[in-house]
Amino acid sequence: MSEQKKKPSLHTVLTPSLLDLYEVNDSIVVIIDVFRATSTMATALYNGASKIIPVDSAELCIEMGKQTGGITAGERDGKIIPGLSYGNSPSEYPRSFIENKTLVITTTNGTKLLHMALKQGAKEVITGSFPNLSKVVRFLKEQNANIILGCSGWKNRFNIEDTLFAGAVIEEIKDQFTIHCDSSYMANNLYNMHKADMPNYIKTLTHWHRLAAYGLEEDMLYCISKDVAPSLPIFKNGSLIDLK
Amino acid sequence: MSEQKKKPSLHTVLTPSLLDLYEVNDSIVVIIDVFRATSTMATALYNGASKIIPVDSAELCIEMGKQTGGITAGERDGKIIPGLSYGNSPSEYPRSFIENKTLVITTTNGTKLLHMALKQGAKEVITGSFPNLSKVVRFLKEQNANIILGCSGWKNRFNIEDTLFAGAVIEEIKDQFTIHCDSSYMANNLYNMHKADMPNYIKTLTHWHRLAAYGLEEDMLYCISKDVAPSLPIFKNGSLIDLK
Repeated sequence: MSEQKKKPSLHTVLTPSLLDLYEVNDSIVVIIDVFRATSTMATALYNGASKIIPVDSAELCIEMGKQTGGITAGERDGKIIPGLSYGNSPSEYPRSFIENKTLVITTTNGTKLLHMALKQGAKEVITGSFPNLSKVVRFLKEQNANIILGCSGWKNRFNIEDTLFAGAVIEEIKDQFTIHCDSSYMANNLYNMHKADMPNYIKTLTHWHRLAAYGLEEDMLYCISKDVAPSLPIFKNGSLIDLK
Repeated sequence: MSEQKKKPSLHTVLTPSLLDLYEVNDSIVVIIDVFRATSTMATALYNGASKIIPVDSAELCIEMGKQTGGITAGERDGKIIPGLSYGNSPSEYPRSFIENKTLVITTTNGTKLLHMALKQGAKEVITGSFPNLSKVVRFLKEQNANIILGCSGWKNRFNIEDTLFAGAVIEEIKDQFTIHCDSSYMANNLYNMHKADMPNYIKTLTHWHRLAAYGLEEDMLYCISKDVAPSLPIFKNGSLIDLK
């Protein structure tokens, strides 16, 4: 009989408020903010952005924009934040615009979770979204490390779209990990229940209604499209870069 | 056309860590701790206990037991806590034993959430579990008040069994409430997905494995049995009593 190797663990953290209940410091943390931060990040890097600097306030965004000569981006309530230049929509970052540029971006939930994961000593931090699902899956399979799938949620509350993405990742990698985590079981369950009908299902979610009020339906349909922006955003020296 | 009455709101709180994100102070809070605190409480009151005093430590349990002459109960790691007399199993509280007695009980998760809800000014606090599902549903339908379904979880982490119960309640009352809450949508979804096969489904959950290691399989199957202990535990003057 061959020797049985101990599998690394996988946990899903449903909102940033719950992160400190988990052992972050020896884990790879996947930051998930499906509508729309991590979908936009994957897209900008796939389209050739040299790097993305995620910051947690508009003030810092302006400051870092000046320091780096980067493009500043951020929205609140569906509008570009005064003092910044662009919004949070993936459609704003085609190759013709973003290639070889630095994007300094502030977002409500995803950036916050990313900084929490760094502060708690994550081994690596990457970002995940449906547009770069397969790249995330491949990376996680290669690492042989404990994993935390971190859902950004909405103002610390649970949301379904981030959980669905966690469930999609779990579906692809569950055989390689020890999973003793009800959040992960639920996420995987929910994903399998709805994967065949995602475009209709997401129209029932709270976040859909909030963003649809700003006319962002197309954005959201893009954000649940698999592998349309296959980059691998990984945090190195203060920025997200495409690991490729 | 008849005048449209504004429906009260319903939210599901997935773990005690998230309670402070919700407006507790004008709400009825349903404390849910399926395995096993709130199932045991419903059972003891249904079997004639005069009242239940939930306390958050073994020390206070002993003290209150002395003051009230009540039966002291509490477990840690599947064993009765030293200094207390009984455990957390619903099977320990048949009518022949508990009728007209006071039960002073300490539990890991449910009691904590109950005290948090009281501290945050809940309008009413009741406890819910499958053994008293229909009583909970009827009470909530009658109140015309905002509702928070509070899952006790496990050491502040999400668990599935409490969420399933929230989903079962939502299934019965959703037409009477405004629900703009992904946690509630997910809970209701999960319940509908598994309601026809609960005894097998719960065997896949983390909590099943933990409690099965103590030989508590029968307890857990009891705890997902609907309406086998139709009481309505409501918190009044420091105790849970059966509203009847």
